[in-house]
Amino acid sequence: MIDLRSDTVTKPTQAMREASFHAEVGDDVYEEDPTVTLLEEKAADMLGKEAALFVTSGVQGNQIAVLTHTQPGQEILLEEEAHVFYYEGAAISAFAGVQPRTINGMRGAMAPADVEAAIRPEDVHLPETGLILLENTHNRAGGAVVPLETMKATYELAQAHDIPVHLDGARLFNAEAASGVSVKTYAEQADTVQICLSKGLGAPVGSIIAGSKAFIKQARKWRKRLGGGLRQVGVIAAPAMIALTEMSKRLGDDHNNAAKLARGVEEAGFDLKYPVETNIVIMDVARAGISGAEMMERLADNGIKAVQFGPTLVRFVTHYDVNERDIDDTIQVLKNIKNML
Amino acid sequence: MIDLRSDTVTKPTQAMREASFHAEVGDDVYEEDPTVTLLEEKAADMLGKEAALFVTSGVQGNQIAVLTHTQPGQEILLEEEAHVFYYEGAAISAFAGVQPRTINGMRGAMAPADVEAAIRPEDVHLPETGLILLENTHNRAGGAVVPLETMKATYELAQAHDIPVHLDGARLFNAEAASGVSVKTYAEQADTVQICLSKGLGAPVGSIIAGSKAFIKQARKWRKRLGGGLRQVGVIAAPAMIALTEMSKRLGDDHNNAAKLARGVEEAGFDLKYPVETNIVIMDVARAGISGAEMMERLADNGIKAVQFGPTLVRFVTHYDVNERDIDDTIQVLKNIKNML
Amino acid sequence: MIDLRSDTVTKPTQAMREASFHAEVGDDVYEEDPTVTLLEEKAADMLGKEAALFVTSGVQGNQIAVLTHTQPGQEILLEEEAHVFYYEGAAISAFAGVQPRTINGMRGAMAPADVEAAIRPEDVHLPETGLILLENTHNRAGGAVVPLETMKATYELAQAHDIPVHLDGARLFNAEAASGVSVKTYAEQADTVQICLSKGLGAPVGSIIAGSKAFIKQARKWRKRLGGGLRQVGVIAAPAMIALTEMSKRLGDDHNNAAKLARGVEEAGFDLKYPVETNIVIMDVARAGISGAEMMERLADNGIKAVQFGPTLVRFVTHYDVNERDIDDTIQVLKNIKNML
Amino acid sequence: MIDLRSDTVTKPTQAMREASFHAEVGDDVYEEDPTVTLLEEKAADMLGKEAALFVTSGVQGNQIAVLTHTQPGQEILLEEEAHVFYYEGAAISAFAGVQPRTINGMRGAMAPADVEAAIRPEDVHLPETGLILLENTHNRAGGAVVPLETMKATYELAQAHDIPVHLDGARLFNAEAASGVSVKTYAEQADTVQICLSKGLGAPVGSIIAGSKAFIKQARKWRKRLGGGLRQVGVIAAPAMIALTEMSKRLGDDHNNAAKLARGVEEAGFDLKYPVETNIVIMDVARAGISGAEMMERLADNGIKAVQFGPTLVRFVTHYDVNERDIDDTIQVLKNIKNML
Repeated sequence: MIDLRSDTVTKPTQAMREASFHAEVGDDVYEEDPTVTLLEEKAADMLGKEAALFVTSGVQGNQIAVLTHTQPGQEILLEEEAHVFYYEGAAISAFAGVQPRTINGMRGAMAPADVEAAIRPEDVHLPETGLILLENTHNRAGGAVVPLETMKATYELAQAHDIPVHLDGARLFNAEAASGVSVKTYAEQADTVQICLSKGLGAPVGSIIAGSKAFIKQARKWRKRLGGGLRQVGVIAAPAMIALTEMSKRLGDDHNNAAKLARGVEEAGFDLKYPVETNIVIMDVARAGISGAEMMERLADNGIKAVQFGPTLVRFVTHYDVNERDIDDTIQVLKNIKNML
Repeated sequence: MIDLRSDTVTKPTQAMREASFHAEVGDDVYEEDPTVTLLEEKAADMLGKEAALFVTSGVQGNQIAVLTHTQPGQEILLEEEAHVFYYEGAAISAFAGVQPRTINGMRGAMAPADVEAAIRPEDVHLPETGLILLENTHNRAGGAVVPLETMKATYELAQAHDIPVHLDGARLFNAEAASGVSVKTYAEQADTVQICLSKGLGAPVGSIIAGSKAFIKQARKWRKRLGGGLRQVGVIAAPAMIALTEMSKRLGDDHNNAAKLARGVEEAGFDLKYPVETNIVIMDVARAGISGAEMMERLADNGIKAVQFGPTLVRFVTHYDVNERDIDDTIQVLKNIKNML
Repeated sequence: MIDLRSDTVTKPTQAMREASFHAEVGDDVYEEDPTVTLLEEKAADMLGKEAALFVTSGVQGNQIAVLTHTQPGQEILLEEEAHVFYYEGAAISAFAGVQPRTINGMRGAMAPADVEAAIRPEDVHLPETGLILLENTHNRAGGAVVPLETMKATYELAQAHDIPVHLDGARLFNAEAASGVSVKTYAEQADTVQICLSKGLGAPVGSIIAGSKAFIKQARKWRKRLGGGLRQVGVIAAPAMIALTEMSKRLGDDHNNAAKLARGVEEAGFDLKYPVETNIVIMDVARAGISGAEMMERLADNGIKAVQFGPTLVRFVTHYDVNERDIDDTIQVLKNIKNML
Repeated sequence: MIDLRSDTVTKPTQAMREASFHAEVGDDVYEEDPTVTLLEEKAADMLGKEAALFVTSGVQGNQIAVLTHTQPGQEILLEEEAHVFYYEGAAISAFAGVQPRTINGMRGAMAPADVEAAIRPEDVHLPETGLILLENTHNRAGGAVVPLETMKATYELAQAHDIPVHLDGARLFNAEAASGVSVKTYAEQADTVQICLSKGLGAPVGSIIAGSKAFIKQARKWRKRLGGGLRQVGVIAAPAMIALTEMSKRLGDDHNNAAKLARGVEEAGFDLKYPVETNIVIMDVARAGISGAEMMERLADNGIKAVQFGPTLVRFVTHYDVNERDIDDTIQVLKNIKNML
């Protein structure tokens, strides 16, 4: 099988397994695990923030950010297909008691003017706007890179209105690899940032949130409430360190593979929903007169795993465990399916 | 001053004050106030539901409905400018822990196909869709009447998906007056309904929610938690009964006044944001080269109170305490303002 | 029937009905109802606070105080049979997301040392202590007056720990009538206070919360979310003003009646659970070899309404609608019941 | 240093590291990690439940249980020093919106009669009792084993009242080792159970919750919301399997060490707060005229780490990384400290 469902399926590398095997560990609830401490310091440094915290997943990192930044009865502004709104089980409302107000973005990027217009004035009927949340790259917009200029303009207006900004950077290293803008430069445009180490970076488990020391202190307590206070966490922090420092450099390969696959999709006679900028390819099969569900079946019959992303959409994600030959094979399968329609 | 800000500003009539003065009362926490019991029975009957409950406001009625129908971590579908989303302080997320998913409607009416497409499939990443909420007439859509056929189609698909429907009918009697469709017929297209007695119906205080007996039993407990369990509530239930049974018949006058005002707006050289169907007139002053805020000031200087409804929008609402002559005066003011621009 | 279930059953007086009939009203969501404004100013003055807010019930006032003072994940300290813990449907946890930590008091009064010992140190495992809540008089402790000295000591330690104090003074005027200490003096020992106007003070509907201007500003928004933002609220604020300013002076009569009833309970051969200090009498029928439920039935058969307060406990509350002759009759009934056991 | 702070400090064994190194892994959000699946099946089997779920901590397991069993506005009954109440940051109120009602137990065991008396009758003022929560062994009661008979009686009354029971069995294998009653037999007395693999069992990370298939299905979604949906979780599930199946057999050694230490505490002239049944020793230094804080310092100066457990209390926990010689050394230190007082 060629597994193109998500970059989350990557398996730990041999180096990661060895790092885990030899990891020095301690009890991190007492803040005594040297391996996670090192990881947190390295991550804070790379992201240009005062402090960082290891969390078990991107969801946990985002939820902690919302819990720490907001108060119940506030509203948060985010793109209408942002992961936090779309895929996190309404946890922001269930746990933090905040209401999402969604804004339709252009390829995942909310226009700063739209964001500003959505900020609530002071009035007894209205929630306060408590947080602006950005996602870069934007998953459901096909791995699109939110432009740095858009982020800058958004952060400026947020500061003018005294509203914090959180960056869901689960795939922020993909943005860096695609645009040449460093993760640190992106992270400057937000008060806090989450990066995921177990997507394209290949760690078995874990994400990082980073921000001010005061933020991380509060975040640590919310993490405990969520059940993310772990013990000998070094065994997963050690491979996560390799993900952060080494795997982050090889994402260009995934992007090349995705670009190749994108061309193949079109050569095969299907459509791209969006231009491909990073490691996500969203194929639209509508014009071929086949449903997304049917396409999924045919792909599976030919050894290709993908994810259905809408009635006529199929998502492919390239990653470390998929090589160029796998991409060639996938393109061939697409052509064969098309020919048999 | 001519107060066109909202139909909530109506003052109790002499008949209402007398009804209150003579009201037989008891302790309603013990369910012993005969006046409120009578009101609840009458309302249930008019709305075609098994039972009804007196609550202190439309907000309270809507919040109780959401609390009773849903579980935390669920999502509710509602129009993107629905009162519950727009004006209730994010209380659905703060109290019920549910996430709103908003749908852009056509004059307040969500297309049933859009509603169905927004229902979440079963998946570990996704919230369950726990409630569909309709608003009729729709305030921010300019008092628009949501067509009965739209409601029917929505209720059918909701039932097919086993999702409850709540109708925010704060101004449902305005829909009845405009369309000739009875409130009972509208209420048939929802599991539960809220009607407000202190807007166009003129009661000093109070709304009603209605539904099954099982729903009302649970609602009573949520009302207590919200602080809506009152004692000698007959003193406000008595005028509310007059609002429900008598004032509900005179809303046509308000609609005539609104229609006249709408014509006046256009005669004066301003635009209507929407065609006027009931008692709400939304004027757009953009074309006249003046901001909404500036328009508000000029109206105030001329003794007219209204509500700013957006950067270039001004909302007028007709009601019992505004007569045809007030409308004539308002139109004259609009013409004068226009002439001086 | 003689109704001794609660002082909440009192019916509005003729003066109250007249005040309501003639009340000048406005739309209080716009803060334009002169009658409620006057009431709030008077209440703030009597309680020695900067500002006050009319709410629909004691529950609503207490919930608003908890919502305004605390953050989710905090703990609040209160007596183990405090109304907020015992009778408010777990609303503090459902809405404000705070955990009650209860302390066993002596006749409703928590020992300051116990309160201090329960304050949580800073630790990642522990909730922060976000609020200390006192109740005076204490309902389930038999209407006991919490001594001013206890309140002072508690407020001092709370301030030393930077923790706010809320006083549930639903029956604070009963404490004043019993102790001679003014409500203002009691209220000085707390940041915020709730007083109920529809218990012994006889208003049909309403309570007051008072505190700093900043507190009341936030409270107003939480009131709106709870559905307590009303319109022509003067119709209930007018009788509430009479309750506040006139009825508050006559509570001594209720206390005399309660004292007489207490003596009668003992003369009849039943026990008092607690000495009687104000208008609440809790009778223990255990020694008489009869259950509380059975006692309730016999009382009802003889035209006496009370409330069962535990397996062998029955609570009587004296109030404006019960006179000395009613007490004599009640005592006679108790004697008759005892003789027939 | 001899680290007796907690059994959470145990480091993974060489066998655990090797198991992790060789673990077959997959993406557990897609339920495709064979190692965690095997662990969950084994745990379900050992606990006699239909299904089990791997979670990242005992806190997460308990919180998921509360979220799955209860509704906001309910009350849960638990011992007044239960971990869920005492050490989980008020998360049950912050996330699940439930109010804890605590019951003073005898060495951690709530009397079934007290539990039954605390169940709320149906009344509009009262929360419903939504869950009964037991903890066995009970940490703050000094590792006390809650007797099987107590659990049986509690479960019977819970079923009679149709209230679910959750067992916080973070140290349930210690109860088994001490009493000879199997974890399965204990778990039969509850609907759901949490066991922690990273305390005495020595896994680096992880706990298990077990219950019916329907419960686990819902639990999986709450785990996702809490951020506990992990990817290649086999790397921690593999050592967790060793903890579950092998380390669980050696807890008798820890209990022997604790018993020896307990004798040493008394020989040294300090008191035991409770008799020692498992691996927890709580020493009271009050009689020795020294504070707990001072005792902590002197222990640290002599290379002993423990936890302060109250003003005059110090807790020691024995575990895999502490051997009999460490206990001898600790006893000698205690004697030296005592002699120097």
